[in-house]
Amino acid sequence: MRILGIDPGTIVCGYGVIDIENRKMKLVEYGVVEAKKQYAELPRRLEVIYLRLTGVIERTLPDETALEAVFFAKNAQSLAKLSHARGVAMLAATLKEIPVTEYSAKEVKRSVTGNGNAAKEQVGYMVRKMLGIEETPDFFDATDALAIAVCHALKRNENKSKAKSWKKFLEENPQRVARIGQKKQ
Amino acid sequence: MRILGIDPGTIVCGYGVIDIENRKMKLVEYGVVEAKKQYAELPRRLEVIYLRLTGVIERTLPDETALEAVFFAKNAQSLAKLSHARGVAMLAATLKEIPVTEYSAKEVKRSVTGNGNAAKEQVGYMVRKMLGIEETPDFFDATDALAIAVCHALKRNENKSKAKSWKKFLEENPQRVARIGQKKQ
Repeated sequence: MRILGIDPGTIVCGYGVIDIENRKMKLVEYGVVEAKKQYAELPRRLEVIYLRLTGVIERTLPDETALEAVFFAKNAQSLAKLSHARGVAMLAATLKEIPVTEYSAKEVKRSVTGNGNAAKEQVGYMVRKMLGIEETPDFFDATDALAIAVCHALKRNENKSKAKSWKKFLEENPQRVARIGQKKQ
Repeated sequence: MRILGIDPGTIVCGYGVIDIENRKMKLVEYGVVEAKKQYAELPRRLEVIYLRLTGVIERTLPDETALEAVFFAKNAQSLAKLSHARGVAMLAATLKEIPVTEYSAKEVKRSVTGNGNAAKEQVGYMVRKMLGIEETPDFFDATDALAIAVCHALKRNENKSKAKSWKKFLEENPQRVARIGQKKQ
């Protein structure tokens, strides 16, 4: 299972790709799109983000994508700009038929560090440790994107193991299953 | 000169294409993308908007695109959703190398009706009259998109006629032009 995490933004947009197999995570690649450095105008920045993310998707072929859900920002203008970038990031994944899942910042922080209010530095440190990254990336956006991918990997596993134990429970406790269809007979 | 006006939205997204030649405007086509009717999930809705707008662009080959600038909305969630749609609309135009211009709602209303606070109904009525549309479209989003295109057409002409009179002024008043290079000789 390969996961692409995206931390969208019109100034810097981070992305990170990881593999998860048998509960073991492995880094594939990560980086940032410095859209503002290339263009002042918003439409051109969105184009740069879209083309770079599409490039990452075509190169790494992720199975699923995860994005941070955004409920508020510094101000309305920031929220609007960020949402433009989120729109093209979602589009890049959807046009390639890759499902998109959203997680709140709290969920991401909690699943990576155990603390929903962890600082960016803590999240970055944990992600680097989990994925064996030795260098310190220039931008938090890159480790934030990896954190979102890690969060999705952990949540998927949680759900899978929950499902497994429910199935196991049914197998081990057949007498506790109400067979509604049979009652009527 | 062919202009595509877009009124983005994740529920209904309006678009309208007009031609302007020698100050005369002509309707090319207009319509709406009912994204929410097709999909509940935001990523899929964005895909529908992007694909439909790209279709309109490929079919009508506009020279320029105009969008309403958005500074606020009912609430943060509406602003965020709208901005996702604006992002993919801008992207659709930019990927085809079509320049995007933004106008505030007030500018659009003022240039179409003469009143920056005009009601949606008034804007719709004026647009239909200007473009000779006899039917009443089902959605204001379609006439709103046409209003944005009309606004862009009028603003472009204003700027052009201003430029023309400045050139004319120079031709008619050569003595009033300071020739800095020549002074030095």
